Amino acid sequence: MMNINLVSRTGREKTIVHVGNMSIGMGFVVIAGPCSVENKEQAIRTALVVKEGGADALRGGAFKTRSSPYAFQGLGLEGLEILKNAKDQTALPIVTEVIDPRDVSIVCKYADMLQIGTRNMQNISLLKEVGKTNTPVLLKRGMNSTIEEWLNCAEYILNEGNPNVVLCERGIRTFETYTRNTLDLSAIPVIKELTHLPIIVDPSHAVGRASLVSSMCLAAIAAGADGIIVEVHINPSEALSDKDQSMNPEQFFEMMKRVRSLQRFMDELR
Amino acid sequence: MMNINLVSRTGREKTIVHVGNMSIGMGFVVIAGPCSVENKEQAIRTALVVKEGGADALRGGAFKTRSSPYAFQGLGLEGLEILKNAKDQTALPIVTEVIDPRDVSIVCKYADMLQIGTRNMQNISLLKEVGKTNTPVLLKRGMNSTIEEWLNCAEYILNEGNPNVVLCERGIRTFETYTRNTLDLSAIPVIKELTHLPIIVDPSHAVGRASLVSSMCLAAIAAGADGIIVEVHINPSEALSDKDQSMNPEQFFEMMKRVRSLQRFMDELR
Amino acid sequence: MMNINLVSRTGREKTIVHVGNMSIGMGFVVIAGPCSVENKEQAIRTALVVKEGGADALRGGAFKTRSSPYAFQGLGLEGLEILKNAKDQTALPIVTEVIDPRDVSIVCKYADMLQIGTRNMQNISLLKEVGKTNTPVLLKRGMNSTIEEWLNCAEYILNEGNPNVVLCERGIRTFETYTRNTLDLSAIPVIKELTHLPIIVDPSHAVGRASLVSSMCLAAIAAGADGIIVEVHINPSEALSDKDQSMNPEQFFEMMKRVRSLQRFMDELR
Amino acid sequence: MMNINLVSRTGREKTIVHVGNMSIGMGFVVIAGPCSVENKEQAIRTALVVKEGGADALRGGAFKTRSSPYAFQGLGLEGLEILKNAKDQTALPIVTEVIDPRDVSIVCKYADMLQIGTRNMQNISLLKEVGKTNTPVLLKRGMNSTIEEWLNCAEYILNEGNPNVVLCERGIRTFETYTRNTLDLSAIPVIKELTHLPIIVDPSHAVGRASLVSSMCLAAIAAGADGIIVEVHINPSEALSDKDQSMNPEQFFEMMKRVRSLQRFMDELR
Repeated sequence: MMNINLVSRTGREKTIVHVGNMSIGMGFVVIAGPCSVENKEQAIRTALVVKEGGADALRGGAFKTRSSPYAFQGLGLEGLEILKNAKDQTALPIVTEVIDPRDVSIVCKYADMLQIGTRNMQNISLLKEVGKTNTPVLLKRGMNSTIEEWLNCAEYILNEGNPNVVLCERGIRTFETYTRNTLDLSAIPVIKELTHLPIIVDPSHAVGRASLVSSMCLAAIAAGADGIIVEVHINPSEALSDKDQSMNPEQFFEMMKRVRSLQRFMDELR
Repeated sequence: MMNINLVSRTGREKTIVHVGNMSIGMGFVVIAGPCSVENKEQAIRTALVVKEGGADALRGGAFKTRSSPYAFQGLGLEGLEILKNAKDQTALPIVTEVIDPRDVSIVCKYADMLQIGTRNMQNISLLKEVGKTNTPVLLKRGMNSTIEEWLNCAEYILNEGNPNVVLCERGIRTFETYTRNTLDLSAIPVIKELTHLPIIVDPSHAVGRASLVSSMCLAAIAAGADGIIVEVHINPSEALSDKDQSMNPEQFFEMMKRVRSLQRFMDELR
Repeated sequence: MMNINLVSRTGREKTIVHVGNMSIGMGFVVIAGPCSVENKEQAIRTALVVKEGGADALRGGAFKTRSSPYAFQGLGLEGLEILKNAKDQTALPIVTEVIDPRDVSIVCKYADMLQIGTRNMQNISLLKEVGKTNTPVLLKRGMNSTIEEWLNCAEYILNEGNPNVVLCERGIRTFETYTRNTLDLSAIPVIKELTHLPIIVDPSHAVGRASLVSSMCLAAIAAGADGIIVEVHINPSEALSDKDQSMNPEQFFEMMKRVRSLQRFMDELR
Repeated sequence: MMNINLVSRTGREKTIVHVGNMSIGMGFVVIAGPCSVENKEQAIRTALVVKEGGADALRGGAFKTRSSPYAFQGLGLEGLEILKNAKDQTALPIVTEVIDPRDVSIVCKYADMLQIGTRNMQNISLLKEVGKTNTPVLLKRGMNSTIEEWLNCAEYILNEGNPNVVLCERGIRTFETYTRNTLDLSAIPVIKELTHLPIIVDPSHAVGRASLVSSMCLAAIAAGADGIIVEVHINPSEALSDKDQSMNPEQFFEMMKRVRSLQRFMDELR
């Protein structure tokens, strides 16, 4: 039914995607950082917090897809330079979004992993363009996309020659309004049944409230995810985007302790 | 915004609901059993399996709300008698559904806990009737209901005088068709923020596939649920309802081992 | 696939349901009135407006299913008496909701047509009870129900012996928040393909804004509906329920002129 | 609440968008043609049918956004050449999709109107690129997008300098599976309240079944739409895409007669 081929689990070993020193699909990884790179100080300070907390990679947006043309659109190339600086200071690999097929080559010069955001999951031109590179790709699930559609988008990337794809469940749109979206953790065991690609979870965008993120991180581990990606900001109340869902450093450190402890337990349980 | 009063967490201790020897809201409980009581042999044998696996209570439906009038509607009073028999043999408290306000008094004679099913969450006459008893109530979330609507239905029950309400997240209806419904585990921390009532999770109905149930049970524990309710059948392929999602005894025993182990770990982590 | 039998169109003539002088399934009917019967003056004055505008029947709720126990729950028996009075003064047949199987016999003494509300579409006990009467039934679609589930609920009623069922599309729950629900007008031709039962449309509850109701009434006619049911209040801003979506008398009169004109045109076009 | 500026109706006259001889926003327009341009013969023969039926413009896809990389992706530039040929033979203006910002200039050489498809509604790079042209844009609603998000995407285009935007409601994704999507006709009066831009309706993609298209076209007129866009194929059963929802020539001619007749009536009614 699924019409998938290259991403199908049948007859294949589980894929491990190497991003700098981080290996996704082996152990449990944590990618953390701000929604947007806002300025040098905010980005570097957050990167140091993320490093101190024990994350494996730094996330941060330079090119943003915003609902309104009047919302902060990201710093673009300047943001990429800041991320490079943050990498120099922390040795963390960089995960950042690309939103235009014409930007893929330039973003590849700065990014260790290219993120395809939820609104661009079915941006076929963009999928084909990142498929022509060898840079690892983090493919977020469209907030309104079925698992079948998601896997077909991964198939587009592999079909162009890039096997380094990691899936990211980030919540789907439902009628519930208390949370921003509804995090579909059952997608984790489903993905493991259907494909050899790793899957990580983004609870920050899904729930939209920082107080709910930590328990969803723990649930993601227990459900078998290969990692999480979370939003951290040195001062969430002043964030230019996603202020409600960003953890402050204390929340992040506390979450990390629990995540690493549960991760070790689950490694033994399995 | 929520317009809730009696169920609001503000100024109240967490509620513990006692159902026979089972205390919901203290530790982690497991309720297990068949979707429907089909006949005496099936029910008793399943009850013994559930007991052997270490569950805290037995579930089983005598009155069923089925989509079609031509589907198996449950054994009714005969089913309640069989459940009583199963209780005699296992000492497990009984959780069973009531679907008609006129049946509440008779079902209370057999049930230790009354289940309000997902299709009856907003059956106000039924809510009021169970609210007039002292029997504990398991209030399933409507598959299309917001958390606000769900809490208001609990408010209906408490408003009639019955404080013994346990909430049960069982998946919501979304566009995704690979799973039967989408399990909303973020409802767990949300419920804990908003109300003093305990919350358990029903992964069987949510995912609709037995192979996915175990990982969702573990995720529910990690997310902070007070328990789970799962479907077990001695021979799922011959079940009269919900055959795809019922665990067989081996799957149940394996799940229970992992659940109890993770539960102990989480007790220490918190 | 649909698992329907008695409601299936195959081999059957289109059903015409007679409610007093109103025949649903032949021509185009308009049922109008307040969401709730609030008091005698409001109900009688609205009934006279509805009559003056040329409606075929009066709607009004005496028993209400409200989200919160603290919202106005309807006048109950007193409301039924007021509706009887309104009928005496206008000769309009009465359409009113029943929400408890124990109330069916008493409501039948006052109602020319029993309404099953959206939250009770799968209240099987209630469906069976109205199925044992001969009183026509207006079965609203569950706001979260598929067409297949809806038809199966009609099947429950016919299966008990009552053939006088009219379906009512009233909007489904989606992610869109600008309108209260999303009116699914494509359900009209679908229902006509699948079943011999008539179908009417309730745009008031679907859109939730009075300014949008008139154009949806016209669209319903063009799509082939057998009628509409709309909310009218003599003073919407003071309504105890559904104030945003109730038309005032002027809006109603204007809408009726356009509805009757379009109806005549469509009768010729077909 | 909507955060819109240039597209807001407040203080502005209704926009009329001129596409060749077709004026959208004045009278009622019909755009028709195949989902995909498959080959010259199919495209030309369908164009002649569309012309004969009285349509105002020809639609046809040369660049396609398909769910699977293994599905027909469109003929690309060759498809554009065929459309030009069809235009030469029928004098109908051409509406065709653009899916990549790098293709905008070339597609503008062939198209009288650029279509932004449902999966690309939030492809911001593409919106900005078409916003830099003067070619009229048909902006389809994302199948999972709120009206607010949709209007913000139109705002992106106007904000780049192109005022010639027409909105197209094409159905939203819901839990209902009998139809492909759920056509939201209430969006028509909503859009007319909120913006000065014209709105047309695509019932073919929404319902996904040719037998339902005609009644939805009539409903769209009655609801106040400025036009429709429908799929027509000379031999639907052999179509390379969307075969279930394409009308054959006879269905199209019959629909057009009824559409034009209703349109004249509605012009008088208003």
